[in-house]
Amino acid sequence: MSGPLAGIRILDFTTFQAGAQGTVVLADLGADVIKVENTRGGDEGRVIYMVGPLDDRRSVFFYTCNRGKRSLSLDLKRPQAIAAIDKLVGTVDVVVNNFRPGVMERLDLSYERLRGINPKLVYVSASGWGTRGPKATHPALDTAAQARGGLVYHTGDPDGSPLPVGAAAADASGALNLAVAVLAGIVARDRTGEAQMVDLSLYGAVLALQAPEINYSLVSGREMPRAGRTHPLLPTLTRVFATADGFLAVIGVEDTRWPGFCRAVGREDLQHDDRFKHVRQRKWNMEELCAALDPVFRTRPTAEWIQRLEAEDQVCSPVQSHHEVGADPVALENGYIVPLDHPRIGRGKVVGSPFEFNGRPTQTDAVEPRLGEHTREVLAEAGLGTREIEELLASRAARQWA
Amino acid sequence: MSGPLAGIRILDFTTFQAGAQGTVVLADLGADVIKVENTRGGDEGRVIYMVGPLDDRRSVFFYTCNRGKRSLSLDLKRPQAIAAIDKLVGTVDVVVNNFRPGVMERLDLSYERLRGINPKLVYVSASGWGTRGPKATHPALDTAAQARGGLVYHTGDPDGSPLPVGAAAADASGALNLAVAVLAGIVARDRTGEAQMVDLSLYGAVLALQAPEINYSLVSGREMPRAGRTHPLLPTLTRVFATADGFLAVIGVEDTRWPGFCRAVGREDLQHDDRFKHVRQRKWNMEELCAALDPVFRTRPTAEWIQRLEAEDQVCSPVQSHHEVGADPVALENGYIVPLDHPRIGRGKVVGSPFEFNGRPTQTDAVEPRLGEHTREVLAEAGLGTREIEELLASRAARQWA
Repeated sequence: MSGPLAGIRILDFTTFQAGAQGTVVLADLGADVIKVENTRGGDEGRVIYMVGPLDDRRSVFFYTCNRGKRSLSLDLKRPQAIAAIDKLVGTVDVVVNNFRPGVMERLDLSYERLRGINPKLVYVSASGWGTRGPKATHPALDTAAQARGGLVYHTGDPDGSPLPVGAAAADASGALNLAVAVLAGIVARDRTGEAQMVDLSLYGAVLALQAPEINYSLVSGREMPRAGRTHPLLPTLTRVFATADGFLAVIGVEDTRWPGFCRAVGREDLQHDDRFKHVRQRKWNMEELCAALDPVFRTRPTAEWIQRLEAEDQVCSPVQSHHEVGADPVALENGYIVPLDHPRIGRGKVVGSPFEFNGRPTQTDAVEPRLGEHTREVLAEAGLGTREIEELLASRAARQWA
Repeated sequence: MSGPLAGIRILDFTTFQAGAQGTVVLADLGADVIKVENTRGGDEGRVIYMVGPLDDRRSVFFYTCNRGKRSLSLDLKRPQAIAAIDKLVGTVDVVVNNFRPGVMERLDLSYERLRGINPKLVYVSASGWGTRGPKATHPALDTAAQARGGLVYHTGDPDGSPLPVGAAAADASGALNLAVAVLAGIVARDRTGEAQMVDLSLYGAVLALQAPEINYSLVSGREMPRAGRTHPLLPTLTRVFATADGFLAVIGVEDTRWPGFCRAVGREDLQHDDRFKHVRQRKWNMEELCAALDPVFRTRPTAEWIQRLEAEDQVCSPVQSHHEVGADPVALENGYIVPLDHPRIGRGKVVGSPFEFNGRPTQTDAVEPRLGEHTREVLAEAGLGTREIEELLASRAARQWA
């Protein structure tokens, strides 16, 4: 293992997306993430979700959320398996789970007990709806957190249905919160020398993601309007426009950029129109302004508009598809999209790690583990003897991939 | 200062949202964040953006991204100001900026030079489009990163315009990536004893946020469809429906939940319909299924549907507005929404910190600093004498709020 988190060991009970996508951030950075999976089929993310067409078993989703981890397959209902976990707990920095509140305690893996084994343990629990309140023991999934948390209400056309985000944004921000929780826990543990317990949730993550917008609504007493093609709190012209061959976004046309914008779109008349003179007038008359601009942008292809707008120092962007992102030199040259050469998925391109430490792009050539691929190896590291390990395997309290 | 990051000192050159929202996560957790601002008006986020109506100067946005920080106001074009920064650099753990690549170097605040002053420095740079490639020196704003990064393309109704997310999701995930970068840098520095330089960007954050979706498209060769009212990669029924008085989301109706779902909506005939028998059939015939369900959900109010669906153990959620989030017991009981009692904004409610350490909700009663409110205090901590400080202020190389 190399990377900035080399030497950090994480015992990882998370599954699916919000949990697993959080610990893969840490695995990408070099942490040794030991993924604990049941002996039946392991993490449900291996087969069920987001694999594409239902008959396609190359689980790109599972690869994405679990590359570089090691898989330890145990039946946590067996006391021998819990005894093995106890030995491992003494060797790791972090235990992390995204079970519903109460499950770790029922498995006899409570913070209080594990801290007794490892007095410097960082213990992170990522729930769906927090540890208190009426939803604490309810299941949570991405779209539910987006809907309850205000993100769906505010996404979409004001005249149509509210819409979820075109990505599992609740899970993905829950994942980043989980990475923050683990790392802040390690920093606190290192400073105080004492064990740390950290709680967070998917719902809390969705609210934090929208803190500026929610705070605007709660403090002003007004409800922020649904966003439509813009961000409703920005005073400047910011909008998605249809072009002759696709869509582009124009962003943040402030007073200093306004004359150049009018030149770029060939509508210098707008610059002297009293309705649009300054940022305030444009904000008040935004619908009229966009009604004037809509037909203009339809006359030329996106690439031509980008060239014209950038020549006038405007902030703008094509609305890119995933495939356009995958071919974008900005993504490729910075290592945000990296080559994949995978024994089962094949060759291709995938999203890399967004972090670059000390001028070196983060290595991401690791693959996801097979179920129980590292069971023997991890149990041996925990100090179990060969005979103990083989007994665990024979009794089906543990499973080794073969 | 208390909290898990108490004792961590951060010299923070970030502005606006993606940078400032990242360091406020760390300030909420107890880090001492010294915000360096120019002597003219400071961070533009103080007045311009997302303040609500243009004539409302209570900048809720600036509060949200800067509560609990201290403000040091310096004119970084003056050598005396840079000399003061140099003294501070010796006293901090972290220097962080979100300037465009090259700006820190032009200010004579390069990593190489500052590491010479503090050999254990963590130096984090958050750019818009990475440090390499054709956009490296271009300005970046949230909607631009969402558009270039694929998030806009995949959000919206398939028949309408692609749409930005109803929150500054690129900035907010960039902010979380920045918090991860700072904390991973501290962990790496503590392990190796050596300075760390970390680079990340808004664009990289937007791609990482969508890693499962982008990887699906790139590996399958198909482009994930625009999401509309669902998440297009989920095999299970997951959808926003209009009700008699609003909207609700139904999530993840797997085979085990299907009979209960049919009972809850009073359409047990659907359960035995060949088109909808198992998850595969429902996925293939999703449009027909939703066409059958749309009129059903319009017949009752949201609260009644939630009650019926939850009685059948379904995952579902009302589509809540910001104000409904602000009154939600789930948010209030977990401290995701906290009371505000602010000298200038007044009393109200705001989003709290989503992290709970050791069973104690994170304290968030701090307010945002006035411009230069802590200039004298911070410079004194850096070891400058009273006379030096007064000279800096008299020459306008520094500014103290008064």
